[in-house]
Amino acid sequence: MIRAGIVNVTGYAGVELARLLARHPRVTLAEVTGRSAAGQPLGEVFPHLAHLGLTIKEELGEVDVAFTALPHHAAAELMPALLERAEKVIDISADFRLRDRATYEAWYGAHPSPDLIAEAVYGLPELHREQIRKARLVANPGCYPTASTLALAPVIELLEPQVVVDAKSGVSGAGRSAKIEYHFSEVNESVRAYGLDGHRHQPEIAQELDGLRARGGQGAVDLVFVPHLIPMTRGILATCYARLSAPLSAEELRDRYCAFYASAPFTRVVRQPPATKQTWGSNFCFVYPKLDASGTRLIALGCLDNLVKGAAGQAVQNMNLMFGFTETEGLEDAPVYP
Amino acid sequence: MIRAGIVNVTGYAGVELARLLARHPRVTLAEVTGRSAAGQPLGEVFPHLAHLGLTIKEELGEVDVAFTALPHHAAAELMPALLERAEKVIDISADFRLRDRATYEAWYGAHPSPDLIAEAVYGLPELHREQIRKARLVANPGCYPTASTLALAPVIELLEPQVVVDAKSGVSGAGRSAKIEYHFSEVNESVRAYGLDGHRHQPEIAQELDGLRARGGQGAVDLVFVPHLIPMTRGILATCYARLSAPLSAEELRDRYCAFYASAPFTRVVRQPPATKQTWGSNFCFVYPKLDASGTRLIALGCLDNLVKGAAGQAVQNMNLMFGFTETEGLEDAPVYP
Amino acid sequence: MIRAGIVNVTGYAGVELARLLARHPRVTLAEVTGRSAAGQPLGEVFPHLAHLGLTIKEELGEVDVAFTALPHHAAAELMPALLERAEKVIDISADFRLRDRATYEAWYGAHPSPDLIAEAVYGLPELHREQIRKARLVANPGCYPTASTLALAPVIELLEPQVVVDAKSGVSGAGRSAKIEYHFSEVNESVRAYGLDGHRHQPEIAQELDGLRARGGQGAVDLVFVPHLIPMTRGILATCYARLSAPLSAEELRDRYCAFYASAPFTRVVRQPPATKQTWGSNFCFVYPKLDASGTRLIALGCLDNLVKGAAGQAVQNMNLMFGFTETEGLEDAPVYP
Amino acid sequence: MIRAGIVNVTGYAGVELARLLARHPRVTLAEVTGRSAAGQPLGEVFPHLAHLGLTIKEELGEVDVAFTALPHHAAAELMPALLERAEKVIDISADFRLRDRATYEAWYGAHPSPDLIAEAVYGLPELHREQIRKARLVANPGCYPTASTLALAPVIELLEPQVVVDAKSGVSGAGRSAKIEYHFSEVNESVRAYGLDGHRHQPEIAQELDGLRARGGQGAVDLVFVPHLIPMTRGILATCYARLSAPLSAEELRDRYCAFYASAPFTRVVRQPPATKQTWGSNFCFVYPKLDASGTRLIALGCLDNLVKGAAGQAVQNMNLMFGFTETEGLEDAPVYP
Repeated sequence: MIRAGIVNVTGYAGVELARLLARHPRVTLAEVTGRSAAGQPLGEVFPHLAHLGLTIKEELGEVDVAFTALPHHAAAELMPALLERAEKVIDISADFRLRDRATYEAWYGAHPSPDLIAEAVYGLPELHREQIRKARLVANPGCYPTASTLALAPVIELLEPQVVVDAKSGVSGAGRSAKIEYHFSEVNESVRAYGLDGHRHQPEIAQELDGLRARGGQGAVDLVFVPHLIPMTRGILATCYARLSAPLSAEELRDRYCAFYASAPFTRVVRQPPATKQTWGSNFCFVYPKLDASGTRLIALGCLDNLVKGAAGQAVQNMNLMFGFTETEGLEDAPVYP
Repeated sequence: MIRAGIVNVTGYAGVELARLLARHPRVTLAEVTGRSAAGQPLGEVFPHLAHLGLTIKEELGEVDVAFTALPHHAAAELMPALLERAEKVIDISADFRLRDRATYEAWYGAHPSPDLIAEAVYGLPELHREQIRKARLVANPGCYPTASTLALAPVIELLEPQVVVDAKSGVSGAGRSAKIEYHFSEVNESVRAYGLDGHRHQPEIAQELDGLRARGGQGAVDLVFVPHLIPMTRGILATCYARLSAPLSAEELRDRYCAFYASAPFTRVVRQPPATKQTWGSNFCFVYPKLDASGTRLIALGCLDNLVKGAAGQAVQNMNLMFGFTETEGLEDAPVYP
Repeated sequence: MIRAGIVNVTGYAGVELARLLARHPRVTLAEVTGRSAAGQPLGEVFPHLAHLGLTIKEELGEVDVAFTALPHHAAAELMPALLERAEKVIDISADFRLRDRATYEAWYGAHPSPDLIAEAVYGLPELHREQIRKARLVANPGCYPTASTLALAPVIELLEPQVVVDAKSGVSGAGRSAKIEYHFSEVNESVRAYGLDGHRHQPEIAQELDGLRARGGQGAVDLVFVPHLIPMTRGILATCYARLSAPLSAEELRDRYCAFYASAPFTRVVRQPPATKQTWGSNFCFVYPKLDASGTRLIALGCLDNLVKGAAGQAVQNMNLMFGFTETEGLEDAPVYP
Repeated sequence: MIRAGIVNVTGYAGVELARLLARHPRVTLAEVTGRSAAGQPLGEVFPHLAHLGLTIKEELGEVDVAFTALPHHAAAELMPALLERAEKVIDISADFRLRDRATYEAWYGAHPSPDLIAEAVYGLPELHREQIRKARLVANPGCYPTASTLALAPVIELLEPQVVVDAKSGVSGAGRSAKIEYHFSEVNESVRAYGLDGHRHQPEIAQELDGLRARGGQGAVDLVFVPHLIPMTRGILATCYARLSAPLSAEELRDRYCAFYASAPFTRVVRQPPATKQTWGSNFCFVYPKLDASGTRLIALGCLDNLVKGAAGQAVQNMNLMFGFTETEGLEDAPVYP
């Protein structure tokens, strides 16, 4: 049993981590922190977790693994000190996802701990499993990048560079913040695009896709990414469009996807367009590739629960790898349907 | 054509008033105010109303009728000055609904303009149509009191005093406020009771029911009122329970309801339990009385759109009466279904 | 006053037509039909329309204008007989939208009334207003084609042929059919793509875009169209992606859209990405064009209520044109928000 | 490890059983049946369960425990044969819940297997734990009866007989049936009461409450039960109203509830009115008792997930008791929030 701590348990990613870690057979959820709620029993903020018997602390003590569910900048500011108290850290924020400091600073402003960037491993096990096993600091991927990258990765080398990702997300992805734009009456019975001036997940998706293309000697993608807010709590569907740079049959396409994910326990190539409900509450990512009628254009779907495979579940999957546990441990549950 | 103004157009009741007044054949929507948004075009705050071409003002000028959609206290504070600039005022707040000052102050604190209480008329046309016609100041009823009172009024004299009202409301009734408890992710897929320590609509319902009972020589009701928040934007269903004090057949019951509402253009006695969707966006209140199997207990349903018959629509209905227009003018539209 | 009839009032498009025609100042809603419900009062099927006092008939008698809200094939089969009884017909089905019979038959099977295809006018007023005015038979556009075509029309001549339309729709677009896939528990908290093997609205969108491109000497579009079902009742958002074939500044882009829709009373070029809620219940289509960061790619949004501008409202707009009424008559109401 | 089978896995209760049993540490989910889908892989009907690798069978073979998730009558018809093949059976249907055959037949028609009624144990562990341990056939309680009975049980002996239960349920409680009344567009943005002519869960609630009252020498309850359908998938909130027959302080009330449920691992007495979201996906039932302002009337809330504690979870809890496992085994997971 290892001792785990969650920094900032009071957001949606943090509380989902608590749910997953509380039942993990190799983990004791030892400590949780939260700034405004420090000193309160966890069950006062989240009555459904009262049975865990935890109290929210101001700061984390010594743990084997720390999960940071802080906003960007705050995570990086805390990181040097945290790495003294925790053997390993999995950071849910965006602070260590971008390997290029200049790119980070163009999107997020000055980086509070640039010296740690080089050490951090991008925690997408389907692409970086071996590095994650050895990492001390893992940057847990964003929800949109996970869905989009997994939808495109198996064939990204075979595509023309112009890629469109049209993503649809439930509202929990926007966090547990009291803003009028997330009021039930504003969100319900409505869909809207946002981030058209540029969304911070775009460079993250591009980084991963470009990495794969570079290995095949291909140039960078020319990516358009448009996220949409839809009236549901959980779930992301990324619909990706690109042209094939060389012919590929439907069967070859599917085989390529199946081979690519043959050893990935959570990413499954499905035979019908998936619905986000089929992944609800689970760590699954469902991927569906499809050629259009002409056979020259790819439509690839990536589908997951933004709080599980898109955040807390993937973080636990990374922890499993970092500590030598079975990759699926504590994450085996089927989706909750309906 | 009369000139109308809305004080505090930026809440849900205010913006619904704008929708209804903009199409009213006897009304020019001349002015709208809003504190934080003063100076902005209305279309900036509400893009769907850009075509009205209005700018949000700091204060109302001279109008024939003013609608105040302010929080309680703020409405009463403004009222003396407003009555100098507007011929007639319809107040959506709770400030002039309770005829007994002490009751008001027990629930809301000190009354800012107690001298105006006596003059105000409770704007439920089904009960007070003639007084409303002559009123200068109408206190527009609350959403729960409208649904509950209309469900029970026709037989309240024939009931034992112990009455239970279990009401279910959409979230827009809580107003356009950025609180975490109204965040989509908190409200969706959830129902909860609230106000169990006492809800301010309770004395308002009791006042109206007691008034009817007093006319029949009956004592006051002993009312339990429990509101519930359910995951929808609009709609209230009040389910009311009481015992008959004297036998009544199902047919007599229905006849009594039909007779009571014979001249009420918006309150309809229906033959099946109504769904709030059947009133969505309209000024209808559907009422359904039912005896239980033993024939001794009444279950009465009141069903309406909380922002229309429960707020802005009823206010327009009151305006029609106050200015001698046809009661239904500007309110004839069918509900929007589905 | 003209006499109007609705064939098949019991579907969602039919019942929405009833709502809109019942309040139209130039129209008497004289007759409604419905196969399974013939003989029943309309208020039995739709309690919210009981006040209209109509009875569902088996067949339409003589009317000035008939609206057919039948499934495809059924509409075309009825059409020859119907045109004997109605001066003008507006067909909500897909039967007369495609001008090329072979294309129709490839997607829908044998056409029951091919002789009428040439006469029918595609009822998108923004593109064919003058022809609609003179038409006897108008083919009312599909919901997706309306949103997509209006989003792209102003600049379709300036785009590379490869166009992606990723559309998101509420569930009412699938009709009032009792299928498990539209069960609340299946749809709620879920999003999914469908029609990836080809959706019937694709040739309809292509037909209209190609018509515009041909006028500018451009070849046909190479269109990928993927619709998605999202957990809401009403609303469509079409997100369209294409590359500019020649440079265009953001200002020129907007000017071009504004000029194109200068005389269109319902299609508005907005300054922020629209939410479908902003069009709910109204005949508005909100259009938002945007260049990506590189300035070479267009993202164009079309946003409307699928049952109003996407079906019944546009049908009434067409009727207004066909009978010489003001184009906006009976359709002036603001959206219902929230 | 015991071998479990599910009869009729294709309904919502059946598929939820599959989710829970698949992760149970003492159980092998050996077989699942389904009439219309027999022969199909489970993953074809439910893609999210493809990883279980099961095929739907026509009939169950020999198992240690069988769960029957059939409609009423069908369950009782199958039961004699099933008890030959399964050591123990937990029946999710209503067929063996009512101990009085005449009552059953008044509500459901002739009982297909009346000889088994006497043997069946009503599977509410909070009331009948010891009998369940020894039972061969357990009748798993209905969702409404579980919520309502648990809300009232601790003080039912101290109440006047007139009890009102106003319950609100998500749509999954109505089953996985393709009816227009459960179409998303009909349910969304709407609430309605149903079963006003009498709902089959009423005698079940009365049976359990009367049993408790009889032990205290009290007469039968006079119960009004009105269920409501609200726009969510999962969750039940039962709001119960009754008068105290003798004075009780708020503290005594709470103490009595806490004592009553001291050894119940899933039923928790909470300090704030619970929201159904706090139980989502878990086997918790949250109970909240409250006196009104006068101190003479009880308002008691029962809150649970209708598919877990209201169906499949409680069935697994019963299995745990019947086989001598720890009562909470396989059911420890926290609710999924948000």
